[in-house]
Amino acid sequence: MDFTLLKTDVGSKARAGTLTLDHGSIETPIFMPVGTVGTVKSVHQRELREDIKPDIILGNTYHLYLRPGIEILEQAGGLHKFMGWEGNILTDSGGYQVYSLSNNRKIKEEGVHFKSHIDGSKHFFTPENVMEIQRSIGADIIMAFDECTPYPCEYGYAKNSMHMTHRWLERCIEHLKKVPFKYDYAQTFFPIVQGSTYTDLRKQSAEYIAGVNADGNAIGGLSVGEPAEEMYAMAEVVCDILPQDKPRYLMGVGTPINILENIALGVDMFDCVMPTRNARNGMLFTSEGTINIKNKKWENDFSPLDPSGMTFVDSDYSKAYLRHLFAANEYLGKQIATIHNLGFYLWLVRTARERILSGDFSDWKNKMVNQMNKRL
Amino acid sequence: MDFTLLKTDVGSKARAGTLTLDHGSIETPIFMPVGTVGTVKSVHQRELREDIKPDIILGNTYHLYLRPGIEILEQAGGLHKFMGWEGNILTDSGGYQVYSLSNNRKIKEEGVHFKSHIDGSKHFFTPENVMEIQRSIGADIIMAFDECTPYPCEYGYAKNSMHMTHRWLERCIEHLKKVPFKYDYAQTFFPIVQGSTYTDLRKQSAEYIAGVNADGNAIGGLSVGEPAEEMYAMAEVVCDILPQDKPRYLMGVGTPINILENIALGVDMFDCVMPTRNARNGMLFTSEGTINIKNKKWENDFSPLDPSGMTFVDSDYSKAYLRHLFAANEYLGKQIATIHNLGFYLWLVRTARERILSGDFSDWKNKMVNQMNKRL
Ligand SMILES: [Zn+2]
Ligand SMILES: [Zn+2]
Repeated sequence: MDFTLLKTDVGSKARAGTLTLDHGSIETPIFMPVGTVGTVKSVHQRELREDIKPDIILGNTYHLYLRPGIEILEQAGGLHKFMGWEGNILTDSGGYQVYSLSNNRKIKEEGVHFKSHIDGSKHFFTPENVMEIQRSIGADIIMAFDECTPYPCEYGYAKNSMHMTHRWLERCIEHLKKVPFKYDYAQTFFPIVQGSTYTDLRKQSAEYIAGVNADGNAIGGLSVGEPAEEMYAMAEVVCDILPQDKPRYLMGVGTPINILENIALGVDMFDCVMPTRNARNGMLFTSEGTINIKNKKWENDFSPLDPSGMTFVDSDYSKAYLRHLFAANEYLGKQIATIHNLGFYLWLVRTARERILSGDFSDWKNKMVNQMNKRL
Repeated sequence: MDFTLLKTDVGSKARAGTLTLDHGSIETPIFMPVGTVGTVKSVHQRELREDIKPDIILGNTYHLYLRPGIEILEQAGGLHKFMGWEGNILTDSGGYQVYSLSNNRKIKEEGVHFKSHIDGSKHFFTPENVMEIQRSIGADIIMAFDECTPYPCEYGYAKNSMHMTHRWLERCIEHLKKVPFKYDYAQTFFPIVQGSTYTDLRKQSAEYIAGVNADGNAIGGLSVGEPAEEMYAMAEVVCDILPQDKPRYLMGVGTPINILENIALGVDMFDCVMPTRNARNGMLFTSEGTINIKNKKWENDFSPLDPSGMTFVDSDYSKAYLRHLFAANEYLGKQIATIHNLGFYLWLVRTARERILSGDFSDWKNKMVNQMNKRL
């Protein structure tokens, strides 16, 4: 792994860099589309490769562990080969889904007991076996096993949880020291800063994580319901402590505006289900604001979906046509909206990068935040 | 419209021809993917254009009349512009859906009263207004309003229904004589032979329809539950009477084997929901037989979906991956299977054409029918 920081913005803490992994280079800041269970929902791999072009996508360890399961993924030679995606992949630790989706979870020092949300079967995640699961999935970047605290979270709980996440981190690192890579390429390990919305805990956790000297670092436990201002405050505290020369990944964030604001604070990597999930509900993100395509006002608007859009769907289809597909509950509508939104998110981070490199990021960011705040 | 018959097979009645309409040439025999409500379900227009390449698709008058409705389609400048499809389109008469989907239908000499399957609203289709609806949709080929009798059907009912369909045909023709085309291209009108599974009625109807001297002719009321042998017998009786120099369209047929057998009887055009509907249930048609991709036997078969497949999905994805998508109920699975099946159906009719032109259709057809009869 190599991370080259090309430029830091003068008017903000935004950074442009290049992260090189064994499945190619990633231009940062980057947004990683979420490929939950080995598929970015309703998007063909060819469309990812040739139209959306994300350099890296995310897979969910929890979902992939349950389906298709580790045995199948190992037999396939890892997730890249299984799904036919030759770009980079990052897997989360499964922690977030264990807490949000599964039933009867019991968090103990040793690990987390939980029942599958699919069939109720019992499972146990530990720092060690989650490293093994991620090694079998074979992502280029794998994440530490952590506890993602909910919002709001009492100070005492947040503090104890943070320290357990730190102890789990040591166990992840110890385990990874003992084992070679499973496939013929490297896997890079990112630890995760926790600490809920408490500044002192965030500082303490960021210092702890910085001390681990990993190849990249993540910020977890945000975008879980807290006000955006608290998210930004925590991201800033943490970014100011994490090493400058390593990529910083803010997990699970967020709206286009959240992304630009966090880029301005020094975040390099993002993932979120919002562009794909909201697309399936008929919400389109554009540089002029958001569109609810189900609205009757689009019924006879035969103009292109997004005249400044970046993917083929923006010129191939009209607003009226997409509105019709949603009204008739035709799945092509979800496909079109998903490609549009992912194309827009990628355009957003690509343009942010250009602006950082050309030195006028802050003005552009402020203009975009203002524009994107509208409902069209 | 121009139809050029290039060759008739020596060992069968199969024909290869070229049908030229204002939205391009159609090489026959042809299969028309069904684009029910302005979308071939889960297939992007770009995939139709560049991967499946059908020359012509079908739209359902009943569905399009209900959603988005005629007013929107007229404002868009017709269905081609509304959906962004520049190839040819054929619309059915709406008759089949009125009989199979709608509630409380009442068939009278004047027309058919029915209630929408969506909201129960009341509607009335007559030969005249169905011509108007199809003129507004703007398909290149429009169909006569007919009654599609069910199977089995009593002789007396089938006979009366057939004569009513003939009287309705006269009304369609009278109506079309009075009106100019709605858009800047021609619409070609096809009448429909009925007569259920009664040879004498089919002959009588075919002679009546032949006498109308239309630019093309259709065979309706088959593939409604009758044994394949009865379908073939009726198709043969009718094809032997319909004019040689006009294209023949067998409505709603069928399996790959049905298509090859009917090509051998002199049919030129087909449509069916089977490749798309069965795809969504995990059934793949291949030249070696059918695959139920949900079967556990494909769980760790990492070979390409179909090594001899015609579209990008056949090499981009493995059987194990597609099986996983169906097991996880991921919509991309339905998308992949749909493109595969439509690619296969188009390959089948394209290859049939090549074999007719090269003079060895019958041997190839017999070999294919034998192969495709297997379950893999
Ligand atoms: Zn600690
Ligand atoms: Zn008659």
